[in-house]
Amino acid sequence: MESNPFHERFHALFNPDTVAVIGASDKPDKLGYHVMKSLKEGGFQGRIVPVNPGATEIMGIAAFPSLAHYAGDIELAIVVVPAGKVPALFRECDAKGIRGIVLITAGFKEIDDPQGAEMQARLSDMTAGSRIPVIGPNTFGMINFHQGLNASFTPEFSRLRPGGVALVSQSGGVSHLLAFLGMHQNVGMSKIVGLGNRLNVDFPEMIHYLERDPDTTVIALYLEGVDDPRRLMDAAKATRGKKPIVAFKTGSALSGDSASLSHTGSLAGNAAVYEGALRQAGILTAESTQDLLDLAKAFSLSSPPGGRRMAVLTGQAGPGMAACDVLEDQGLKVARFERRTQATISGLLPPLALRTNPVDMGPAWYNSEAIQGIVRTVMEADEVDGILLLMMFASANRDAVSGLAEALRRWKQRKPIVTCLVAPPGVWDEQVTALENAGALTNLPTPERAAKAMAGLWKYREMVSMSVREPQRES
Amino acid sequence: MESNPFHERFHALFNPDTVAVIGASDKPDKLGYHVMKSLKEGGFQGRIVPVNPGATEIMGIAAFPSLAHYAGDIELAIVVVPAGKVPALFRECDAKGIRGIVLITAGFKEIDDPQGAEMQARLSDMTAGSRIPVIGPNTFGMINFHQGLNASFTPEFSRLRPGGVALVSQSGGVSHLLAFLGMHQNVGMSKIVGLGNRLNVDFPEMIHYLERDPDTTVIALYLEGVDDPRRLMDAAKATRGKKPIVAFKTGSALSGDSASLSHTGSLAGNAAVYEGALRQAGILTAESTQDLLDLAKAFSLSSPPGGRRMAVLTGQAGPGMAACDVLEDQGLKVARFERRTQATISGLLPPLALRTNPVDMGPAWYNSEAIQGIVRTVMEADEVDGILLLMMFASANRDAVSGLAEALRRWKQRKPIVTCLVAPPGVWDEQVTALENAGALTNLPTPERAAKAMAGLWKYREMVSMSVREPQRES
Repeated sequence: MESNPFHERFHALFNPDTVAVIGASDKPDKLGYHVMKSLKEGGFQGRIVPVNPGATEIMGIAAFPSLAHYAGDIELAIVVVPAGKVPALFRECDAKGIRGIVLITAGFKEIDDPQGAEMQARLSDMTAGSRIPVIGPNTFGMINFHQGLNASFTPEFSRLRPGGVALVSQSGGVSHLLAFLGMHQNVGMSKIVGLGNRLNVDFPEMIHYLERDPDTTVIALYLEGVDDPRRLMDAAKATRGKKPIVAFKTGSALSGDSASLSHTGSLAGNAAVYEGALRQAGILTAESTQDLLDLAKAFSLSSPPGGRRMAVLTGQAGPGMAACDVLEDQGLKVARFERRTQATISGLLPPLALRTNPVDMGPAWYNSEAIQGIVRTVMEADEVDGILLLMMFASANRDAVSGLAEALRRWKQRKPIVTCLVAPPGVWDEQVTALENAGALTNLPTPERAAKAMAGLWKYREMVSMSVREPQRES
Repeated sequence: MESNPFHERFHALFNPDTVAVIGASDKPDKLGYHVMKSLKEGGFQGRIVPVNPGATEIMGIAAFPSLAHYAGDIELAIVVVPAGKVPALFRECDAKGIRGIVLITAGFKEIDDPQGAEMQARLSDMTAGSRIPVIGPNTFGMINFHQGLNASFTPEFSRLRPGGVALVSQSGGVSHLLAFLGMHQNVGMSKIVGLGNRLNVDFPEMIHYLERDPDTTVIALYLEGVDDPRRLMDAAKATRGKKPIVAFKTGSALSGDSASLSHTGSLAGNAAVYEGALRQAGILTAESTQDLLDLAKAFSLSSPPGGRRMAVLTGQAGPGMAACDVLEDQGLKVARFERRTQATISGLLPPLALRTNPVDMGPAWYNSEAIQGIVRTVMEADEVDGILLLMMFASANRDAVSGLAEALRRWKQRKPIVTCLVAPPGVWDEQVTALENAGALTNLPTPERAAKAMAGLWKYREMVSMSVREPQRES
């Protein structure tokens, strides 16, 4: 792999051996307490160095009055001290040879007081010549799931499963929302990064870094406003075809704009203009927070289909119709089966069942070999590029998932399989989660969301193939 | 209440003292087994009469060779015998004085064989002069949750909470989907009715009946195709302003149409034409299966707002922006606070926080009295018609829901409150569910879905007030 300056610059930040918590505390009403808890409980294998002038021990770990008092090397500093103390602290970090900072402290550009913006400008000047990346200020922090490094004030982030989705977000609230939804929906994440006020780490830097991150399969962005759209577009174009980027942007409402101005100190700008620009840069746009998560999940578990012709295999007709409506609305096609495919499927289903695409497998409920045979047939059919498999639980098809599990594991998505397998709580969850974790499918809880995710996979493939015709940029 | 012929005709069907299962079985590969299980385990307090010529006892209950062999009255017969035996059975039901039939048996109009349609026409003729309502054929059945009557082949339906949503559906798959999603999302249901091939009970009959059903607050319809749209529109118009009706219709895709033809024997027809007609009849249209469930849930737990001016109270700015985008896109407005409202809120928040609407309550996280005060202020403000309350869990606001719970219970939605309170699994679920069950709010898992549900409540109010200007029909 050729060298990547962003990789070198960010590696220590995300993979530190030793982490200092500046403003560590054992009082639960202090953020420094929650940060300590995140590090301790998140599975971090390195050393934790609490820094607090008023303590000798915090949560059973020896504390130090300042960074300088600790003799060893420290790669990452997580900072929760008040804004006024940050400039002096930055000098200490520099002197100590710190390689990265997570600046959770708020009270900068986002507040309703010109002093905040001045203070941020001052920090900006201080770090201008430095190569030390600063996540924040005004952030909840960041998490590197594959290292068990939870450098945030929310210990609960560590409950997410490590996986391929990297989330880079301008909003702490949306990061928390997507993380919690992700826990319910078995989304595996590589990193979550709360950019906050973006002192010197913004979307472009993170895109360049994540492009080479071996743990990250797909980059998900939550955007409100961008100060320098050109840099974002350039970063995305340089990544095009190497790793999918999916983005959701809020701020189309006027009222949202004023919230954004206060929130992260930048205007949200015109939604349509942004959307066009994002697409041109090869970024797939999502329509909602949930859509962003669905697309990211699909890219982390399934490969884009080679074409737009879908087989829709459904245990019940209604969900198949709902899926077909969305498929066709999104530009995909319900595949027309070749005679041979049709004949094989007909042979597997009892008489009087609907055998054309969508295939109503209801009549084969009691026969998991028939269902396996149908899935195998469309998997091997040249006229099918991807498979939507929709099955609602009923007592009579209780074993439908277990009956298909071994074959699905073996096939490992020779063609992408997006499913909607829905049952009462606790009935199919474990089996479906295991199949996702084995790379056998992507499951979503409604037929429409399954169809839309498959469409997203295809749109990305189409976008990337079009980009080949454009002059290539140096990356 | 004036008399309603539909109420009288359907009352015994949905509230039987005695239920016969024709084709009852204790073999798990028979539908008659699952129907028996549904009745036994669903909490039905009446008497169950298994009918099967080959058994004297089924699941510990005395069985009878035929209906005639049972001496007492039977109100409801659930039928799972093969199609060929149904005509003779209908004569037995008539002779026995049965008041309603759930005809689960398939093999009629929906199959790829003209014999099926002929058989259904024959049944149709048989019941033409009769007042016995027949749910089906080709249905999973129906459930009356407030009676513990699960007259379906899916015992798991009984895990749903009794509540105000009546779902009438043309698809068994979509009924199962929405029921299972509803279990995850705390949707309370009054009835689920699978219409199947609609021998003599169709959407209009169900709408007329449910309009007077005291357990039903909102009627949710899942439509594929309608044989006689005029009758549906007339039923909806007669119900307009009395009880909200929400509908989702599939079948816009060509491929969906052919599935529908096979599925329930009717063409789906042009989506846009249907949508316009539904709206004109006062039916609120949903955009997806999940949207149908969200709207139904909102109507069952919250009243429509008196106007379009919304207060958006958010624990974090990002989710507030996502909600505002949807609110404004859907025709609602973010309220402009009067000076007094603004001053009160400003007094409750620490300096430097955003106090205009949307109100960023983040700085008051540690202070549940301040958050209570803010909610009370907008609840009492004349310029606010409804409240969106969005809070993502963080360790620092762990007690945000419990701190607000008592006040929310006391206020009981003097103005509608739709929330998006999201936390890791198991953290806030019980508290939020309890608040919903106490009528204190409607909770949805993303800011966009919360905003869209509030918009749906408003659209219904607007639609109903417009209908007043039209000439009223006799109901």
